[in-house]
Parts: sequence; structure tokens; C-alpha cells
Amino acid sequence: MKLNIALLAGDGIGPEVIDQAVKVCDAVAKKYGHEIIWTSALTGAAAIDAVGEPYPDATHDICMKADAVLFGAIGHPKYDNDPSAKVRPEQGLLKMRKKLGLFANVRPTFTFPSLIENSPLKRERIEGTNLVFLRELTGGIYFGEKGRRDEGTTAYDNCVYTKAEVIRLARKGFEMAMSRSKKLCCVDKANVLETSRLWRETVQELEKDYPEVTVSYEFVDAVAMRLVQWPNSYDVLITENLFGDILTDEASVISGSMGLMPSASIGEHTSLFEPIHGSYPQATGLDIANPLATVLSAAMMFEDAFGLKEEADAIRNVVDKSLEVGVVTEDLSGSNKAYKTSEVGDWLANNL
Amino acid sequence: MKLNIALLAGDGIGPEVIDQAVKVCDAVAKKYGHEIIWTSALTGAAAIDAVGEPYPDATHDICMKADAVLFGAIGHPKYDNDPSAKVRPEQGLLKMRKKLGLFANVRPTFTFPSLIENSPLKRERIEGTNLVFLRELTGGIYFGEKGRRDEGTTAYDNCVYTKAEVIRLARKGFEMAMSRSKKLCCVDKANVLETSRLWRETVQELEKDYPEVTVSYEFVDAVAMRLVQWPNSYDVLITENLFGDILTDEASVISGSMGLMPSASIGEHTSLFEPIHGSYPQATGLDIANPLATVLSAAMMFEDAFGLKEEADAIRNVVDKSLEVGVVTEDLSGSNKAYKTSEVGDWLANNL
Ligand SMILES: CC(C)[C@H](C(=O)O)[C@@H](O)C(=O)O
Ligand SMILES: CC(C)[C@H](C(=O)O)[C@@H](O)C(=O)O
Repeated sequence: MKLNIALLAGDGIGPEVIDQAVKVCDAVAKKYGHEIIWTSALTGAAAIDAVGEPYPDATHDICMKADAVLFGAIGHPKYDNDPSAKVRPEQGLLKMRKKLGLFANVRPTFTFPSLIENSPLKRERIEGTNLVFLRELTGGIYFGEKGRRDEGTTAYDNCVYTKAEVIRLARKGFEMAMSRSKKLCCVDKANVLETSRLWRETVQELEKDYPEVTVSYEFVDAVAMRLVQWPNSYDVLITENLFGDILTDEASVISGSMGLMPSASIGEHTSLFEPIHGSYPQATGLDIANPLATVLSAAMMFEDAFGLKEEADAIRNVVDKSLEVGVVTEDLSGSNKAYKTSEVGDWLANNL
Repeated sequence: MKLNIALLAGDGIGPEVIDQAVKVCDAVAKKYGHEIIWTSALTGAAAIDAVGEPYPDATHDICMKADAVLFGAIGHPKYDNDPSAKVRPEQGLLKMRKKLGLFANVRPTFTFPSLIENSPLKRERIEGTNLVFLRELTGGIYFGEKGRRDEGTTAYDNCVYTKAEVIRLARKGFEMAMSRSKKLCCVDKANVLETSRLWRETVQELEKDYPEVTVSYEFVDAVAMRLVQWPNSYDVLITENLFGDILTDEASVISGSMGLMPSASIGEHTSLFEPIHGSYPQATGLDIANPLATVLSAAMMFEDAFGLKEEADAIRNVVDKSLEVGVVTEDLSGSNKAYKTSEVGDWLANNL
């Protein structure tokens, strides 16, 4: 197969971890007889510095033509404590999501037996956790009208959802539930919000199309609790944009393996794959960042974007092997030898 | 002192736990020479059943005349999976908050050394945790305009904040920080929301009035993570209504002592004190519910509403003693004898 992949390395440790994923992808392609055409493009603070725009049109064109997008991380400390800065890296992220129509963010949380002790939770709470969030990514309060009135002393943000948006996301959730354990949890705040009531009634209507799926409805505050208490009681969860932002981040730390968690954003035009960790500015250029989340995002790309499951599993297996033999970066090495980011990438590519 | 207290027992286990708090308050009053005048009033599903309204005017009048309100819990399963029900217990709660002007919800999370093993978190993560959230309670997306258009297929909820609302809540936060460790964390989503930018800039302006307080600004998704990882790194946190709903519930389970966590809602007209747990319908009438959160809410009432710190400490001390000697309900008794709700209340009142 010929695979056209747009490469958006972004800021901070983005370029370093992306480099390792490229090595691994190229090794897989070679082994299975595929040809990958990589096209790099600017995004984030790197793009602001170069062309004054965090998601330039040229980058968008490259993404639109690609079969998939592999993304590193964006964000730079110089923008952090200045929420009013005119151009911000995050704007690029939001613009990209909207323009590529990346409506469903898929965020799994699972455990690696060898890393379970890294979890802040006790073993019996976290063991066996294997859940996945589907977060709506192009609607809600992120994209509603926002502004000021009364000479700037009143601020507002509108949260808006259409039934069509809910159906699109929820169908993905039902399909995912069908391919897993047939359990779906719809997370909302239907006791307070009208948008949540639309979500709930729409999902209730869809239930008849998926008679095998057992659906539960839970309030966002209750889920925030149960994720800490019994994360292994969840399987597939669907939710709107802002709740998803908060809950997927909460879920990501409970496994103790945040540095390993991949994600996908399913789009109308293309799909994007990225590690869930941030741009980790303090580690930039030090060759110490953990590349495994990006490598596992590449595995998701092979499976979900190209339908190449065997290739995806080959990547996952070599990652498991690296954990077993301890070829890992300093965040995971404990008192053993810590490998460099690039050494981990080389080892993975060579041991596929 | 003569203390006028409105008593809103509510639904489920509300009446049972409130009964124990009344016993304890009466015992404290007797010991310290106060006179308590209790006035009971209907609220929640109990009020809907009786008069068709979850927060009747008669109840409001009683609260307005009281020096403080002691509240049990509201909510009934018959309303749970019917978000479109015309009258719902939660509406009473929101109406009460608005009409009493209960603008600041104070939610501490702390640990009891003897209960630390109940936490889902490992000991080294939770030990020493002693934080308090101030959640804005009468604004934001809870109370903005909400509705449908396009024949019901589009739903919207508006989130609105005025600078005056932010100042009122934030000043309480700064004052609380001054009385504790002088650390304040402002939780927002200023990289996305205009209301959050108003929050952040307003808090930044207030900093000059409290030069001793060190203020940090964190995004809500980051706080959702750090609460699980290092809860003991926080002290006073201030935030808007919806973020507060999610984060305070998340925080409440990390201590492992949810059944013991009290809360206060500071109002323009009066203040209200309530356990943070819900109405626990399955346990209703069984005399098994843990009354300690309500008893500790009464302690907060003595200190915060009446300025009676000695009385408050007397209550807290007898609660500590009950935990030490194991006069506790089944949720805390482990393999030892479980006491009834009413037995715990009697023991506390007798041992003050
Ligand atoms: C950076 C920010 C705008 C973004 C979001 O809130 O969606 C991030 O937190 C995420 O979850 O990808
Ligand atoms: C019942 C519900 C309306 C309420 C809220 O969301 O405020 C509850 O969750 C709470 O936190 O007191």
C-alpha cells in the first residue's frame, strides 16, 4: 500500500517523539511492503514563529490531501500566562479540529501489567482497566459564540449542540461498543443543561438501532468520582466536548501510564493521531521524552486509518517487548538504566 | 445565644442523618448554654409530593428568617431517568441557591488518619491532603438562558459571568487563603473560554489587595489530573459553578471519607450547611446511613455562621473519638460491629 501521511511535529518535545514514530513506521512499512510518503508541515508555536499563524493554510492543504495525520504536541510556555495573547498555539489546534472536521476524539485508557505500580491508585482499583472515551471535538462551548458586553465586565460563552452532531458521535460510540463489550455510558448533566437533555434523548432514540448494547446514563460529576473509585467498571463512554476534556485527562492519569497513551481524532476528511501528553517544554531537546505514546498512536493509525491490523499489532508487540526488557526512558526506568528517546526509537525499529 | 435554625431534611436518608445532627447540636447547646429554635420545612421530592413544588415559598420564608439552614439531601429515584420531568427535586435545589443568594459553596477535602486506607489512592499520594474548594454557586451555565430552536433539534445553554460575581467569590477565596497557608489556585479554561478569561483577569487584579497570597492559575483539565496524582499539593481552590461541580465531587472520593465530608454554602441572606453525599435512596429508613458528614456540617455551622469555634471543635472532637473507639456505621466498621445511624447519634450526643 502507498500511505500518504502528513507529519505535524509541533512544539516542545513534539519533533523528538515524532522522529521515533517515523523510524518505527518506516520499519513496519519495509517489513510489510508498504510505501510511506511523509509530508511535514508547520503547526503550533513553531508555525506562529515562522509564519504568524498556528495552523497555516499550507498545513491545512497538506492535511486534506493526506490519508492520515500524525501529530506531536503543541504549546509553548511563552504563551502560557497570557490568555489574551492575540495568536495562541491552542487556536491552531481548535482551527485544525474544525477545518478538518475532527468530530470524534478517541481516548483509550488501559494498563500495562508491568507499569501498574506507577498508578496513583491502589492495584485492586486499577487492575483490568480498559476503557475508551469518545469525546465530541468540534461543537459545544468550545465553538459557540463568545464575547463581552457591558464594557467588558460581562463575559459569555454559548454551548450549542445539534441533534445531527450528537447522532454522528453517538453512532461511533455504539459501533465501538459493538466491537468491544457492548456496554456504553453516556455522560451528561441532563439534570441541569438543555444540551445534555438533547444528548440524552438522542442517545435514547438510537438505542433501538443497537439492541445488543446496554446503555447507562450518568452525570458528569458522578463519572468524575467513579473514574477514581472503580475505573475498571467502565468500557465505552461518550460525551460532549468540555466534559470530555476534563474526564479524559482525569482518566489518563489513573493508569499511571500517561506517557504511553495514544489517541485518534476521527474526521470527515481525514483522521489524526497523537499522543495525549503535552509539549513538555522543560524536556525539549534533551532526548529524554518518552516516545511510546506517539509510537502507539502510529499503531492506531495503521489499524484505524489504513485497516492494517497486523502492522498495528507488530508495533504494539515491540512496545510491549521494550517494556519487558527495560528499554525505556527515564520516566519509566526507575533505578535501572534510562535510555534516550532516540535509543528507544532505534531499538523499536530494529526489533520489529 | 439564641440560634434560629431552619431544618431541611429532604429526601432519602436526609431525615435520618439530620436527626442525629439535631441530637448533637442540642447536646452542644445544652453544654454551652445556648438555645436552639429548630424550624422544619419541606424540600425536594418530599416537598413535591406534599405541595407540588420542590422549594415551596413557605420553605423559603423559613430559611430567610433563620440564622442558618441545616440541610440533609435531596433526590429520589423516581425522577432519575426522566430528565424531562416537569418538576424535579434538583430544580428546588437550584431555586433555593438562587433565591437565598448562596453564591459560594465551601467544600473541604481532608483525611482522617484512621480512615486513610479507605482511599482509592495509595497512602503516599493522599496523606496530608487538606484542601478546600470555593465553588461559585449562583451563576455560570447553570443559570444562563437555555432552550431549543429549529423545532427542538438544536439545544443551547449560555454561560455568563459578571465581574462582580467573580470578585465576590474570589475575595472569599483570598480571605480563606489568608486564614490558611496563603496559597490560592484559580481554576479555569482561559485558553478556550471568554468567561474564564474574565475570571483570570479579575483574580489577577485582586492579587494586589492580598500581596501575601501566592496565586496560581491552572486549567480545569490539568487540575482534574493533579487532584488524583498529588491532591496534597493543593490548598484553597476557587472556580466557577460547573467546574466546581465536577472537581469537588472528584476531590470528595480521593480522601476515602466521602461519608464524612461536610460543606457550607455562604449566602447573601443566610448560609446553608449540608453533607456532600446524596440522598442514598437504597438505604432509606434502614438506620444504616453514616451521619458524620451531617454532624460535621453542623460543626461548620457553629463556627462559620455563629462564630462559636469552641462548640464546633467540641463536635469535631467527639466525632474523632467515635472513629477511634469504632462507634461507626457499616460503611466504616469493616469486620467490626456496625452501629446504627441512631446509635452513632446517641453516642455522640452523650459523649460530648
Ligand atoms: C489545549 C486545549 C485547547 C485542548 C482542549 O481543551 O481541547 C487540550 O486540553 C486537549 O484536550 O486537547
Ligand atoms: C443535583 C445537582 C443539580 C447539583 C449540582 O450540579 O449543583 C449537585 O450535583 C451538587 O453538586 O450539589
